[in-house]
Amino acid sequence: MSSWAIVIGAGPGLGAALAKRFAREGCHVALLARNAERLTSLQKQIVSAGGQATPFACDVTSKEDVDRAFGLMKEQFQQNRLEVAVYNTAAFSMSPFLSISPEKFESDWKTMTLGAFLCSQKIVDLMAKQNHGTLIFTGATASVRGSSGFASMASAKFGLRALSQSLSREFHPQGIHVAHVIIDGYIDTEQLNKTFGPGEPGTRLDTDAIANEFWNLHSQDRSTWTQELDLRPFSESF
Amino acid sequence: MSSWAIVIGAGPGLGAALAKRFAREGCHVALLARNAERLTSLQKQIVSAGGQATPFACDVTSKEDVDRAFGLMKEQFQQNRLEVAVYNTAAFSMSPFLSISPEKFESDWKTMTLGAFLCSQKIVDLMAKQNHGTLIFTGATASVRGSSGFASMASAKFGLRALSQSLSREFHPQGIHVAHVIIDGYIDTEQLNKTFGPGEPGTRLDTDAIANEFWNLHSQDRSTWTQELDLRPFSESF
Amino acid sequence: MSSWAIVIGAGPGLGAALAKRFAREGCHVALLARNAERLTSLQKQIVSAGGQATPFACDVTSKEDVDRAFGLMKEQFQQNRLEVAVYNTAAFSMSPFLSISPEKFESDWKTMTLGAFLCSQKIVDLMAKQNHGTLIFTGATASVRGSSGFASMASAKFGLRALSQSLSREFHPQGIHVAHVIIDGYIDTEQLNKTFGPGEPGTRLDTDAIANEFWNLHSQDRSTWTQELDLRPFSESF
Amino acid sequence: MSSWAIVIGAGPGLGAALAKRFAREGCHVALLARNAERLTSLQKQIVSAGGQATPFACDVTSKEDVDRAFGLMKEQFQQNRLEVAVYNTAAFSMSPFLSISPEKFESDWKTMTLGAFLCSQKIVDLMAKQNHGTLIFTGATASVRGSSGFASMASAKFGLRALSQSLSREFHPQGIHVAHVIIDGYIDTEQLNKTFGPGEPGTRLDTDAIANEFWNLHSQDRSTWTQELDLRPFSESF
Repeated sequence: MSSWAIVIGAGPGLGAALAKRFAREGCHVALLARNAERLTSLQKQIVSAGGQATPFACDVTSKEDVDRAFGLMKEQFQQNRLEVAVYNTAAFSMSPFLSISPEKFESDWKTMTLGAFLCSQKIVDLMAKQNHGTLIFTGATASVRGSSGFASMASAKFGLRALSQSLSREFHPQGIHVAHVIIDGYIDTEQLNKTFGPGEPGTRLDTDAIANEFWNLHSQDRSTWTQELDLRPFSESF
Repeated sequence: MSSWAIVIGAGPGLGAALAKRFAREGCHVALLARNAERLTSLQKQIVSAGGQATPFACDVTSKEDVDRAFGLMKEQFQQNRLEVAVYNTAAFSMSPFLSISPEKFESDWKTMTLGAFLCSQKIVDLMAKQNHGTLIFTGATASVRGSSGFASMASAKFGLRALSQSLSREFHPQGIHVAHVIIDGYIDTEQLNKTFGPGEPGTRLDTDAIANEFWNLHSQDRSTWTQELDLRPFSESF
Repeated sequence: MSSWAIVIGAGPGLGAALAKRFAREGCHVALLARNAERLTSLQKQIVSAGGQATPFACDVTSKEDVDRAFGLMKEQFQQNRLEVAVYNTAAFSMSPFLSISPEKFESDWKTMTLGAFLCSQKIVDLMAKQNHGTLIFTGATASVRGSSGFASMASAKFGLRALSQSLSREFHPQGIHVAHVIIDGYIDTEQLNKTFGPGEPGTRLDTDAIANEFWNLHSQDRSTWTQELDLRPFSESF
Repeated sequence: MSSWAIVIGAGPGLGAALAKRFAREGCHVALLARNAERLTSLQKQIVSAGGQATPFACDVTSKEDVDRAFGLMKEQFQQNRLEVAVYNTAAFSMSPFLSISPEKFESDWKTMTLGAFLCSQKIVDLMAKQNHGTLIFTGATASVRGSSGFASMASAKFGLRALSQSLSREFHPQGIHVAHVIIDGYIDTEQLNKTFGPGEPGTRLDTDAIANEFWNLHSQDRSTWTQELDLRPFSESF
């Protein structure tokens, strides 16, 4: 039986690094994001490196889209074993409180929390049938601290963290490992380098290093599962 | 200049106790909830006890309703000083994860988090003009712990707690006190007594005792403000 | 039956304010600290304001001293009801890690944690016989965060917080209220004013305002007990 | 330049598993514990498996002993690179509060906290010269929760956690990785099996699996360092 994995929020940066790592570990990777073009480009990179990937363009805040995408995945991967799924969709959002529009507050929540809920129901359902699999949520500093200016992002990210805790407590005993990773610092992406210039070596979270930590979570013995992992550069104040 | 207060979620139980207490402290209390009939009944109780209250029937999850209600309040209370506002709207919600409908997950969030966001923008705006006032959010055990079965409620309540933290950090320096109260146990309400029978004395949170704690938060010297307060019966395991 | 109270660490500043407040509430206050002269001076202030106080000079890190002092208290107050006891002994301690001597690390722990343990055993024993009373520990920012430079102070203060939690969970059901107060900021003391000059109004914790919060904790209805309270000036970053 | 490692609390169970793992990774392992005989037995096992280890019988609560042991290590390993050090000394301690003797409270603290302080000063000093190395503290459920009956153990373990936080914040920027691991459950040791019988598979933390997590912490890229890791069996309630 071959293995597969799901990366939701398979954009450039961390999403791509996760997908590539899971492919290198032998998983056929289902790539989810809104931007179909980018997914195809990522798929090509994975395939040309000898891996397998299939894009599923999808707006994860839409129940219909999520239903459709997971329907297709079920068909394609029904003989396979789902190893790991990551909900990595996020949006940086910072603003004085009185400048946050209700639309923005709602869309931040939909992107970071509702989408996670919708996808988790599908993923947990698939993993429960196997009594196996790891579901990981990407968190941030704002997941554990409501700083000034972060009312919208922190509210959504706290909500995501609560979801991860509830799922851990309900599904660990069924063999599904659920974990929440707090990314406490800037991720070293091309876009960040363009905006702020390159940082000092090691001061921004390396995407391959993060992907390694996610894979390690999946590789944990079931007698030593981690629920929450914080990751930050050696140079980061906290 | 006379004083006024706002109780959002002025239903029976804690909401009513808060409104009565604020009225006894000399505040004209704006009562918000969906059920107009109940609000009028509560208003009558307050008035017959010598206090002042005005009902504003309102669905706090609707921006239009919130706009309309706060527009009316602004007119009525523009010469007054807003002392304290409480966001007390909540909904108990417990269910196995795979049985939670997306509609329920969204409506829990709207009731417990989005409504708080919409009302907070109005309240903070009013209080910022005075450089004075206390905004309190009613939390629960699920605000700090995502237990099994509480994916929906905890996700919403965590989000509310994040909101309270962000508002504290942004608005304390402007003289607006923002606090989050964790109710860790069962509130002693008529409905609970009907369902489960009366509890042993002191084992359920007394609504007047809670209201006293909320008023104490408002009465704190600005050199000793509390951001988070936990309240539980002496008999409660935690 | 008359009331009494205990203030351990009844030095100038917060200790004195607590003692004066408890005396004003009608308690005969037992004053504990090492410095006998200061205790006598505080006693005089309380008595001249119409209150009652007795000094018990005592090194709370010494089991013999604690045994002796509580032996004397038992005799003097055996007919009375112990209302509230505060462990307020602390020491500010900040230093690069490699500069902390083992003696300093141990003496910080003895002052802030061992002394609390020794006194708590006496206090809990007294309160358990009444099924009544409130035991409060004074904490600090370092009680919940191990910052750089605070290895010694944070280690001791974390230990004190753990003690407060264990006592709450063991003795709340017996009617003894145990609480931990986090003082997050500078207390407005004469000594601080001498060193740093007077602060802007409200930016340092007022000792009478803190004492008010401690008394409020003691006054809580047993259906709404607080385990942990944070107090900070409106102007404080956190 | 060859590598070395330090295991403090190299008793049977987790300590032995850590030492064996570090030896397999190519480190010459310094073994510290009070029981010289056991250390020699562990050394033999490591050597017979092709590894290197040296016993340093030592009471880590004694400054003199710690000075002596680290003096010997410095001589032996001065040309080597210290990779990882673990403070694993602990003592299970549970008792009604009023039954804890002051001697026990103090000895728990010395074993779990003071010993960590004494050894950390030596270790940090060694690692600061290399700008490299990982220092890991073994924590427990009692490190983050003061349960009833755990006043002594939780007080000591909270203190240890504070120490780990302060060291992380002071020394991460110097290239020393400091982490705290929360063991939330029973470790699968021979002694436990004798007392309670064998558990269901996977329901007790496997010592080799824990050792793997410790090594993974040491292997983290410096752009993604973890400060705190929780480990628990899939079956554990939390």
